[in-house]
Amino acid sequence: MKETWSFLDTFEPNFRPLVVIELAKGTKKETIEWFTKRIVDKKANGGAQLLIKPLVTEDGDENIYLIGASYLRLLLGAETVGLVKECNDNSMRSFTYSSRKTFKDFADDNHNFLTMSECQYIIKHELENLRARDEKMIPGYPQAKLYPGKSIGKQVRRLLTNGILVQIFPLHDREELKKLRHTWYGRVRIGYQPLDEIRSYFGETIALYFGFLEYFTFALIPMAVIGIPYYVFAWEDYDKYVMFATFNLLWSTVILEVWKRICAVMTYRWGTLLMKRQFEEPRPGFHGALGINPVTGKEEPVYSSIKRQLRIYLVSVPFVCLCLYFSLYVMMIYFDLEQWALDYHEENKSTFSSLMLYVPSIIYAVVIEVMNRIYRYAAEFLTSWENHRLESSYQNHLILKVLVFNFLNCFASLFYIAFVLFDMKLLRQSLATLLITSQILNQFAESLLPYWLQKRHVKKMKKHTRSLKTDTDLSLVEQVNLEKEMGTYFGTFDDYLELFLQFGYVSLFSCVYPLAAVFAVLNNITEIYSDALKMCRVYKRPFAEPTANIGVWQLAFETMSVISVVTNCILIGMSPQVNALFPDSKMDLVLTVALVEHLLLAIKFVMAFVIPDKPREIQIKLAKLEFESLEALKQQQMKLAAESLKE
Amino acid sequence: MKETWSFLDTFEPNFRPLVVIELAKGTKKETIEWFTKRIVDKKANGGAQLLIKPLVTEDGDENIYLIGASYLRLLLGAETVGLVKECNDNSMRSFTYSSRKTFKDFADDNHNFLTMSECQYIIKHELENLRARDEKMIPGYPQAKLYPGKSIGKQVRRLLTNGILVQIFPLHDREELKKLRHTWYGRVRIGYQPLDEIRSYFGETIALYFGFLEYFTFALIPMAVIGIPYYVFAWEDYDKYVMFATFNLLWSTVILEVWKRICAVMTYRWGTLLMKRQFEEPRPGFHGALGINPVTGKEEPVYSSIKRQLRIYLVSVPFVCLCLYFSLYVMMIYFDLEQWALDYHEENKSTFSSLMLYVPSIIYAVVIEVMNRIYRYAAEFLTSWENHRLESSYQNHLILKVLVFNFLNCFASLFYIAFVLFDMKLLRQSLATLLITSQILNQFAESLLPYWLQKRHVKKMKKHTRSLKTDTDLSLVEQVNLEKEMGTYFGTFDDYLELFLQFGYVSLFSCVYPLAAVFAVLNNITEIYSDALKMCRVYKRPFAEPTANIGVWQLAFETMSVISVVTNCILIGMSPQVNALFPDSKMDLVLTVALVEHLLLAIKFVMAFVIPDKPREIQIKLAKLEFESLEALKQQQMKLAAESLKE
Repeated sequence: MKETWSFLDTFEPNFRPLVVIELAKGTKKETIEWFTKRIVDKKANGGAQLLIKPLVTEDGDENIYLIGASYLRLLLGAETVGLVKECNDNSMRSFTYSSRKTFKDFADDNHNFLTMSECQYIIKHELENLRARDEKMIPGYPQAKLYPGKSIGKQVRRLLTNGILVQIFPLHDREELKKLRHTWYGRVRIGYQPLDEIRSYFGETIALYFGFLEYFTFALIPMAVIGIPYYVFAWEDYDKYVMFATFNLLWSTVILEVWKRICAVMTYRWGTLLMKRQFEEPRPGFHGALGINPVTGKEEPVYSSIKRQLRIYLVSVPFVCLCLYFSLYVMMIYFDLEQWALDYHEENKSTFSSLMLYVPSIIYAVVIEVMNRIYRYAAEFLTSWENHRLESSYQNHLILKVLVFNFLNCFASLFYIAFVLFDMKLLRQSLATLLITSQILNQFAESLLPYWLQKRHVKKMKKHTRSLKTDTDLSLVEQVNLEKEMGTYFGTFDDYLELFLQFGYVSLFSCVYPLAAVFAVLNNITEIYSDALKMCRVYKRPFAEPTANIGVWQLAFETMSVISVVTNCILIGMSPQVNALFPDSKMDLVLTVALVEHLLLAIKFVMAFVIPDKPREIQIKLAKLEFESLEALKQQQMKLAAESLKE
Repeated sequence: MKETWSFLDTFEPNFRPLVVIELAKGTKKETIEWFTKRIVDKKANGGAQLLIKPLVTEDGDENIYLIGASYLRLLLGAETVGLVKECNDNSMRSFTYSSRKTFKDFADDNHNFLTMSECQYIIKHELENLRARDEKMIPGYPQAKLYPGKSIGKQVRRLLTNGILVQIFPLHDREELKKLRHTWYGRVRIGYQPLDEIRSYFGETIALYFGFLEYFTFALIPMAVIGIPYYVFAWEDYDKYVMFATFNLLWSTVILEVWKRICAVMTYRWGTLLMKRQFEEPRPGFHGALGINPVTGKEEPVYSSIKRQLRIYLVSVPFVCLCLYFSLYVMMIYFDLEQWALDYHEENKSTFSSLMLYVPSIIYAVVIEVMNRIYRYAAEFLTSWENHRLESSYQNHLILKVLVFNFLNCFASLFYIAFVLFDMKLLRQSLATLLITSQILNQFAESLLPYWLQKRHVKKMKKHTRSLKTDTDLSLVEQVNLEKEMGTYFGTFDDYLELFLQFGYVSLFSCVYPLAAVFAVLNNITEIYSDALKMCRVYKRPFAEPTANIGVWQLAFETMSVISVVTNCILIGMSPQVNALFPDSKMDLVLTVALVEHLLLAIKFVMAFVIPDKPREIQIKLAKLEFESLEALKQQQMKLAAESLKE
């Protein structure tokens, strides 16, 4: 092996920095030496065989390192991570170095075959999979124990808190970013986002989020268009009402099903639909007594599943319930305030008092936002304390906790108004206030505030370095110094959550407030721009993360659309117009509503079942690949059998 | 290739007949010659490289052929079909000839390593995958066109109707069968069925059916035990009623979820859980203009999907609706008859007239059975006319058609009685009559009648051959002659359908007639015996069919359990005891019932989501295998990359 990997030399004339590693100032020399050696060392010696260069800043500090890799190393890495690329015959295949000539745009000197974000993903994967060999601990840090086969990369990341490693992040490509910004949001225009470019710059997870945001906005337009006349002409006829709600319910099923198909088309083109799932390593925060992993047979920390279950059911679940109770308690206070404001208005009847009517709702919306954020930290702490072995399981438990709380927090008051107070006017008003306030707050807290802070910081920096250069003229040192101070983007969780709650506002009570879809569309259009701004200018570039779908969010949106069938049916049943249709018997009314609800639910499930998740074209392409791999397997088996018979 | 396969000689000293092929009397000599040559021919020449021997009967006819294979050929075939076997380290792995030594119980002279049913499955697979080479047609039959790569096996099977091939079936193993019969139903005893032995004799599909039947019977026992006191003491209190129904609803969810786990444990042990899905060839009846298959790129009949959709939506769907309407019409006649019988009883009040009360129900049950059977033929014809390319798609469309009709046919009258007539006494009586009549009819039509016919036939045969030998002493010729006249077992469809309808009787109206579970348990105990008898004595041995689960039936049972939540909630809401709890407001009653129903449905879905489909133990084993294969792939990639770098 040694000979074959040897010429992947660590010294290459045109070193291209891809990833930045910032170590703590004052990290022990022996640690740095050991660490850089492991990164540079040959594969055969258990290293990552990457290139590393210290970044010499003006102060002469040597705590920032740039990591790159030779082109050949990256190609071999692309094979290891299982990258899927387009072939010359337009089919998508897993890239292998031996079949590299069959891939589209491949040439031994075409360094653009892999996008920069792919190269960075490969480097991240290699760093995370760096494993300990003989060392029992990280040199210089005896408390950081290692054992053979233990992933150093993750161990080092765990030491972020211990202070060795400050951060790892991929570098921006100023030229590319400028181009992307221009096509994305640089000019005011109506059209699709450049999703393929976003994908090749930021990776699939983020591109898929923007794809979903765009799709969802387009999908809301019909609801918004149909909703406007209801508001303008104050249509409150039974027929039109029911028609609108029924359309909404079926439409929301259709859009969620169609999204799966569009998502399959996109991720097929990007190659992630075909990408094999990698074997999941334990997440960085996972700890436990050293034992034997029953799956890999290797030594690694083991944590009993029963202990975890106990922590979940005896601590997390009661805590979540307590929080839910508290949230309901706050809600009741809100209703007292509301009543007080109403009484005050009755007494005074001034412009001020009529403005005061909106105050409780606005306060409540702010409180909800604050509670959501505090709860989020608690949920993260608890889920991390539950000590999940896999990142995916951690994420699922976190998302579930946050979703339940956010759902209650945002919608409990609306449910209370609708189904306990039976006050449709108040419902409409609360819905509008909540929706609009939360949208404005979100846009502000998420993008504009960080953007403004970032801008101020850049100005200060520039004053400090006394340069008047534009972004693209910055030297590498300046660029790294600028980027390392930028905020970190923590993934698409909050962005999806915002869309999820918006979907709730639009669909749960759609027949009471048809204008919700209009506001959602308007918000989403600005959301696209502010999110794009956030990605390009506010945060550090995130590592690309391949993904084939939006995961648990698909389930969350589908659950919301099932709940909205129930709420809308009840709302329609409660409307005076429908009540007037059954003057003699409330019983018949309730039974009719129940029947319609069950029918709608049945139609929903049948539709979800009948609409295929992947378009026929993609199905055929996937079947073709499966057929080819089966044929190849058969050939290989025949060959092996023939060989074994010869012996 | 030729050398390596060459010593798989077609002449082996101890030829063991496995499969019987019966050609039509008077088949042209050239066809027989061509056919046997293709079976015997070496793989390198495109043959199946099996062994074939004509069976010389007393009349001197040569239209029956016995097919066998050398042990080596079978082992290579086991690799081709992807058989999964237990290794020496107790893990399950795909069998490969080169790694044969690592498998448990493998020895070069242990011919029991593959069970007889596995050998027969391998031979069936080889025959079905026999492909045409240069021949443009089957010699002697110019109308039977062939083209290179076309599967001859399936083509030949299609010629069953044309008359070349009468049948292909696997031979029974008299010794094994006797042993199996003894442990299965030979002695009256209480205990589990010998599922592993059933599996190794009949294959996984049939063993899984018997496993499900047994599991389902055990699962019904708690319902039956709780149901008995309700009947004996005529408990009609509200609390006990609701408790029973709630228990039933949650229980039915639990048993269906737990079944998935048990099924996973069983099929893991049998190796089918890990078996890779084979690429599906077009089903024998599929026809169309010759075109290019977009998946395989090979020439084969192509049939436009739009045409098929048109046939489905313009012919099949209206036909099914018509049948459903007709079924409802018959139901209305039944109610007229019922009314007439009641009036007659009112007038006469004799023992005869009280017996007459049961007559309409019995007639209706018989009519339903007859209609079901007629409809079944129509559905088979229609689905076959829809011209589905794949057997699985054909099966799904057929099952859907038959299920809808059977569901309506069996339960429409009960729904009518319950929710239109509101007559609980009549409901209970109808339910009992329908359940018991259909059970008796089924047992009779399915097993006892064929068994009796078969017995008579054997007697006649024995008289004919003037021998008084017992079963095991029969000569091969006698055995083949006996078995070729036996009926063909058409798969587990009808058996599952029976269980499905039984599940409907038990769960849909469980709170009205708690005794249904008792009858179901009693029926299932005899059903196990009569089905076992049917498999062992009445029908030809069926080809083993590997399967990992009960497929679409799981979905059907789950759907039934969702519907039963709705029906039971309504029934409880209608009961006088519950009505008495809400003396003032029927409205509150309906709302409470609706709330409870939605809660129960929500609990069901959460339970189905939370209970893992596979036990932890199996999950770990599967993860271990996946990990190993990923590691192996990585190693292989490294090796290939290293090799390609050397060049």
